[in-house]
Parts: sequence; C-alpha cells; structure tokens
Amino acid sequence: MTNWQGEIQSWLTEHKYEIVRLLQRFVQEASVQRDEKYVQAIVIEKLRQLQLTIDIWEPDIKELRKNEAFVSTRTNFQDSPNVVGTLKGRGGGKSILLNGHIDVVPAGDLAHWRDEPYSGMVRDGNVYGRGSTDMKGGNVALLFAIQALQELGILLKGDVIFQSVIEEESGGAGTLACVLRGYKADGAIIPEPTSMKIFSKQQGSMWFRLTIHGRSAHGGTRYEGVSAIEKAMLLIEHLQQLEKNRNARIVDPLYKNTPIPVPINIGTIKGGSWPSSVADEVIIEGRIGVAPHEKMKDVKEEVEEWLKKISVQDSWFDFHPVDLEWFGAHWLPNELDTQHPLISSLSQSYERAMGHPPTIEASPWGTDGGILSQVGKIPTVVFGPGVTEVAHFPNEYISIESVIKATEIIALTIIDWCEIAD
Amino acid sequence: MTNWQGEIQSWLTEHKYEIVRLLQRFVQEASVQRDEKYVQAIVIEKLRQLQLTIDIWEPDIKELRKNEAFVSTRTNFQDSPNVVGTLKGRGGGKSILLNGHIDVVPAGDLAHWRDEPYSGMVRDGNVYGRGSTDMKGGNVALLFAIQALQELGILLKGDVIFQSVIEEESGGAGTLACVLRGYKADGAIIPEPTSMKIFSKQQGSMWFRLTIHGRSAHGGTRYEGVSAIEKAMLLIEHLQQLEKNRNARIVDPLYKNTPIPVPINIGTIKGGSWPSSVADEVIIEGRIGVAPHEKMKDVKEEVEEWLKKISVQDSWFDFHPVDLEWFGAHWLPNELDTQHPLISSLSQSYERAMGHPPTIEASPWGTDGGILSQVGKIPTVVFGPGVTEVAHFPNEYISIESVIKATEIIALTIIDWCEIAD
Repeated sequence: MTNWQGEIQSWLTEHKYEIVRLLQRFVQEASVQRDEKYVQAIVIEKLRQLQLTIDIWEPDIKELRKNEAFVSTRTNFQDSPNVVGTLKGRGGGKSILLNGHIDVVPAGDLAHWRDEPYSGMVRDGNVYGRGSTDMKGGNVALLFAIQALQELGILLKGDVIFQSVIEEESGGAGTLACVLRGYKADGAIIPEPTSMKIFSKQQGSMWFRLTIHGRSAHGGTRYEGVSAIEKAMLLIEHLQQLEKNRNARIVDPLYKNTPIPVPINIGTIKGGSWPSSVADEVIIEGRIGVAPHEKMKDVKEEVEEWLKKISVQDSWFDFHPVDLEWFGAHWLPNELDTQHPLISSLSQSYERAMGHPPTIEASPWGTDGGILSQVGKIPTVVFGPGVTEVAHFPNEYISIESVIKATEIIALTIIDWCEIAD
Repeated sequence: MTNWQGEIQSWLTEHKYEIVRLLQRFVQEASVQRDEKYVQAIVIEKLRQLQLTIDIWEPDIKELRKNEAFVSTRTNFQDSPNVVGTLKGRGGGKSILLNGHIDVVPAGDLAHWRDEPYSGMVRDGNVYGRGSTDMKGGNVALLFAIQALQELGILLKGDVIFQSVIEEESGGAGTLACVLRGYKADGAIIPEPTSMKIFSKQQGSMWFRLTIHGRSAHGGTRYEGVSAIEKAMLLIEHLQQLEKNRNARIVDPLYKNTPIPVPINIGTIKGGSWPSSVADEVIIEGRIGVAPHEKMKDVKEEVEEWLKKISVQDSWFDFHPVDLEWFGAHWLPNELDTQHPLISSLSQSYERAMGHPPTIEASPWGTDGGILSQVGKIPTVVFGPGVTEVAHFPNEYISIESVIKATEIIALTIIDWCEIAD
C-alpha cells in the first residue's frame, strides 16, 4: 500500500505557493452579501481546472420559501450564484460533501484595520483580510485536498461533492438551496474556523428585533417624557440576566472551554430622532444562541415569556410592552454523536497529521451544518483551519501552515471515508 | 382716560373665531426645518392686512458665520425666509420687539398621535397639532395684540417690531439674522410656551455628540469582543451622575419648581451594523442645559473633564477614550433682573388681566432670548400662552382661552411700554 500521507505532504509542500495565491485571490474579492459573483468566478475556474462536473445556479427564492428553514433578508438571489463541483467515484464507497460558504461579513470600522480589509497580505506566515479565516482558508483547503488526490492519481469509490455557497452569514439560504437541489451524501465536512478543533455540535442562533417605547418630550423638561433609551438600557440588562440563566443550564462537557455557550448578542441599537427631544422609540437587533439540543420554537417561547417579566422591575412595560420580532436570519443547531464514524475518520486523520489526538468541542456559533443535518439528513462535522477568535474581527487572518495541515487532514479523511478504488 | 382694557377684551371676544382660524392655518402648515415658507406666506399676508412695513429675506449664511453665536446644520437658508413687520410709533416712547419662531420640531412617531399631527383640530377649547403650543399660539397672540390696538385706534409713541423667525429649534439662526440686520428695541417679549408664567431667565443649551468605541467580534463568541453598546450604557450612567452634580449646584429660587433645572438629555443613539456582530461603535447625541449664569465655555470644559473620569470605573476608556464633539446647535442662556421695568410692566398687565400676580420663574429650556439679550443687547422676557408640558410632545395642543388672555396681556404691555401718543 502506498504511503499516501507522505505523498500528500510532499505534494502540499510543492504546491504551497499556489495554495496561498488562490487564498489571496479569494480574499481580495470582497464577497459580502450580494457581491459573491466575482469570487465565485474564481471558484468556477478552479473547478474547471480540476475537471469536476460543475453546477452553477442562482437559488430560486420561490422554491426556498416553501421550506420552513428558509430565512433571508433578500427578495431574490440574482447575481449571487451557488457553485457545486462533483467528482464522481467509481462506486461502492461512501460519498462525502465538502461545504464552505463564500460570503463574508462586512469589514466594519476601517479605522480598526491595519491594512486594507481585503488586502490578502501575507505577513509572518499568515494571510490577512476579511474572509481569510471565515472561511475562504477552509474552502481553499477543500479544493487543494481534491487537487492533491487527483494529481497523485488516487481514484475513489465514493463521490466527492464540493459546494461553494452564498448566504451563510445571513441564514444559510445557499446551503438550503443545495439540499433542495438534491445534493446528498453519507457525510459532510464544513471547514469553518474551528482553530483545528473538531466541532461535533454547533450552536444554532436566531435574530431578534425589539422595539422599546418611550414618550417624547422636550429635552429641557426631559422629566416630563419617558426616555426609550433609558428603558432600552433596562431591557438590555434584563436580557443579560436571561443569558446568564440560559447558560447556567448548559452542562455538556463539550462546552467546558466556552465562556458563554449560548450568548445573547445585542448587535445594533438605534433610537431617538433629535438631540433636544426625549427618544420615544429605540430598536435593538441581536442574535440569541440556540443550544444543540434545543428547539428553535422553545427558545422563542422562553424569550417571549422572559420579556414579560421586565414589568416586575418597571411597570412602564406593563402599559408599553416591548415588541418582539424574529426576523432576518436563523441558523439551525447541529448535533453529531462523538462516536459517529465520520468523527472517528476525521479524528484518526487528524492524529496522523498532527501527532496528537484532536480536541472535540461544541462550537459557540451556528453554521450551515444545521441545514445539512436537519433538512438534508446528512451527518455533518465542522472542522477547519481558521482562527475562531478573529472571525468577524478587524485584522482577520489565517495561518498558512494551518491551511496546509487542514488540507492534509481533509485529504486523508476523504481517502478513508470514500475509500480508494482498485 | 379710555378703559382700553375693556375695549380690548370686547374686541377679542368679537374676533375669537378669527384668532382660532389663523392659529389653525398656522398649525396646518408643517413648518419643520426647511419647510417654513408656506406658513411664512400666511404671516406675510397677515402683516399686509395690518399694513405694517414688511421685511422678508433669506438669511445670508456667510454673514451669519462671522458671528460666534451662529450655529446651524444648514449650508444655506434658501427658501427659508425670515419675516419682520414694523409698526412705526409717533416718537418719544420705548420700542418693543415681539419675537416668535415659526419653525416646529418633527412630529415623531405618528402612532402616538390621536389625530394627524398637523390637523389644527379644535376640541374641548384647545387647538391641536404640532406647533400649536410651541409656538404658533404665541405668534398669533402677538399679531392680534397689534391688530386690536390698530382697530381700536390706539396710536403709540414707541415702535412695535414683530418678527416671525426660522431656525429657533436648531439654534437661533433666524433671530441672529434679525439682530445682525439691525433690528433693535428697548425691550423684547418672546411668547414661547410658558403656561402663562413669566420667565425672566432661560436655560441655555448645547448639543453634543459622543462616539463610544468597542471592538467587533462574532456574536456567538461575543466575549471576545467589547460591546460599544454596553460601554455606551456605562457612559450614559456616567452622564446621569454629571446631571445630578450640576443640578445640585443650582440654588436660584426661580428654579424651585423645576425638577431638573439644567438637564442632560440623551436624544439619539445609534450603533452596531449587524445583529450577529459585537458593535464596535455607538454614537449618542444629546443636549445639555446651561444655567442662566453659566458661560458656554465653562460648561464645555466641565463635560470634557467629567468624561475623562469614566476611566476610573472602566479602564477600557483609558485606551479607547470617548470622542466628544459640540455640534449642530446651541442656545445662549438669558437673564433679566426680576426688577427690570419690562418685567414690572408685563407683571402689572398680567395682574390686570388675570386678577392675580404672575408666577415668575426660570425656564427649563433655551429660547432665542439668549441671542436677543447677549448679541442684540435687548432686555428680553419670555411669556406665552402655550403649555410647557406638551411642547415637543405628541398630541401637542394649546388652550384657546390662554391665547386670548395672552393677547390681552401683551396688548396692555405694549400700551404701557410704548405709551399712547396724544
């Protein structure tokens, strides 16, 4: 039997520059929501070189809306294509789905970035830029794992399906469109930024919008009004208490290193219309984490009930209740048993590549894994080279060495999972 | 000597419908900033009927900018005319300036309004609508005081100057333009909504903008970021303490009925860009009251020093200080001695009309009186029929009876101050 691991390692060493170059080109395309097409063109060109069967389509929002998992702030997906490449196996093996999102979150305040946010600059062994860690580095690892196997002449029994999807950052419409288009597999890997840990469970999440009411007045007699800003501060403290209560219930050891397993994040706040007036309305928008074992419906009910309790602190809310709206996006949680063969296969490959067993944890954030497992019924694990701590941060980066190692681990897992054809 | 008071009362009773009708027409024109010209057209038509010398002009921002009292969010005053009408006296008497602003603040959340905000609806003896109290009711009182004197054939020694100005709600550029155009008088009355109290002093105010910095992160690992929203909450509490400290120093008995003589109002808040991200910036805008005896400069310094002290509570602010900007608008405070002859004249007229002495207080909000007194050197008093509590509120209204009474008191004051010519 050939020492495929040694061959793969040599191949990766030879192709390091090419790997970094593709990652830089990916990062340099600012693929925020609605601007994914330029980077997808580079993906398509790469899949063409790999001679995969290519499927490119703009998801049909009418079809998507029929599925209850669908959420999106968009009215259509024009000019935002999904791209899938399939490498057909010789038959008789398990298939694997390799899924990565190509959309990135906005860069935020440019003042916090050392370089231009989409520079793709290489410095101290890292590639910098929005999307480098979340998750273009992971996507590049998937593509080069396939390329390495092909160029080393390894033929597989099972199919390998690579998906470059839109909209993960806004609720997963891209991956849902792949599932609804019929893409299935015996297992899936999503190389989101796990810092090379294996995440067998992922936190789901939902977006909420809360409208807090006050009563306007002239700022010079502000005591005659009721400040919606002050009421919003009370409400935020109330939500901080809900976060404490919810997290106190999480006892899963997979979360032992996670300070807040299911956080409540207040992401935006906006209220008042005039500096000299008392604000009569504040709107806050945020994200609530959903534990892997929780049902979205139960979490919604818990929040609704909790909001009612704020009247105990301040009777203003009795007569001016906060309006709650679940809007925009949600991500289903995902759970895969740590004893599942896909976890075993990935863990074994990890240990062969790294020389020590992997850390298996639950992720503090949602991924498209919830859609793959809950809607697509595909056992899904999340594992990737990106750095959890810098995802959605200014000065986002990824270690080139991690990308190379993840590529090796994914290539080994594909071989083990799909099996080599005679 | 004719019983002018009785004649004026009879005249007002006969003209009550006409007074209400003009007030309704004023209210029905939504004269928010930049939309003042339609209501000014009605003012002009009224001044023409009264055969006053009419002066209409769009303030020249280049001229205004040369004066340090000038503030505005505008780049020009095109289509926003000031209107002044002068009734020349026979000579030998003191002149009086009657100043009212014609601009109104925005209506705010329409859901809080029972009627359409600019309805001008009459119900239970009140006229309803944005601007009814602040301060179109006062302006109507000024116009009918002049009309009553004219139609009763009363000739005055001193000049009467009526000013219908723009921009009071945004810092007083309209009144400043009147002062710079050369309008002077021996005394001025501004019929802002004082609930028929005489305000010999007025709180000044300034607008501030504070930018609070955080550090972005994914909401699912929000503990890796620093929420600018949470830091803004700390800062607002810090400003609430400054408000307490500043008001503890106010001992002027004129403020004895005012819960917070010089409030700090947080009027607007805006921050964060994505529900699933930790907000890295929040901007709050507000208004700080300036006591009649305070210098704007000293208040600015006090705020700047206080902001530095927040680091004691949270060292984050040491390395990420809050940015402070004084922007948009300010209103100079005004002080007139309660023994000034103008206060005596107005008080005497009040007592004749109402049968009891007036309440003399300090106002909790700024007016154009600061510009008239500090820039124009015109002794100024604020007295009007509007209801302090509903200014800038939804369902703003004014009592028709108060408007009539204020008209009588102002007419009597004009007679006393300007003196009847032989």
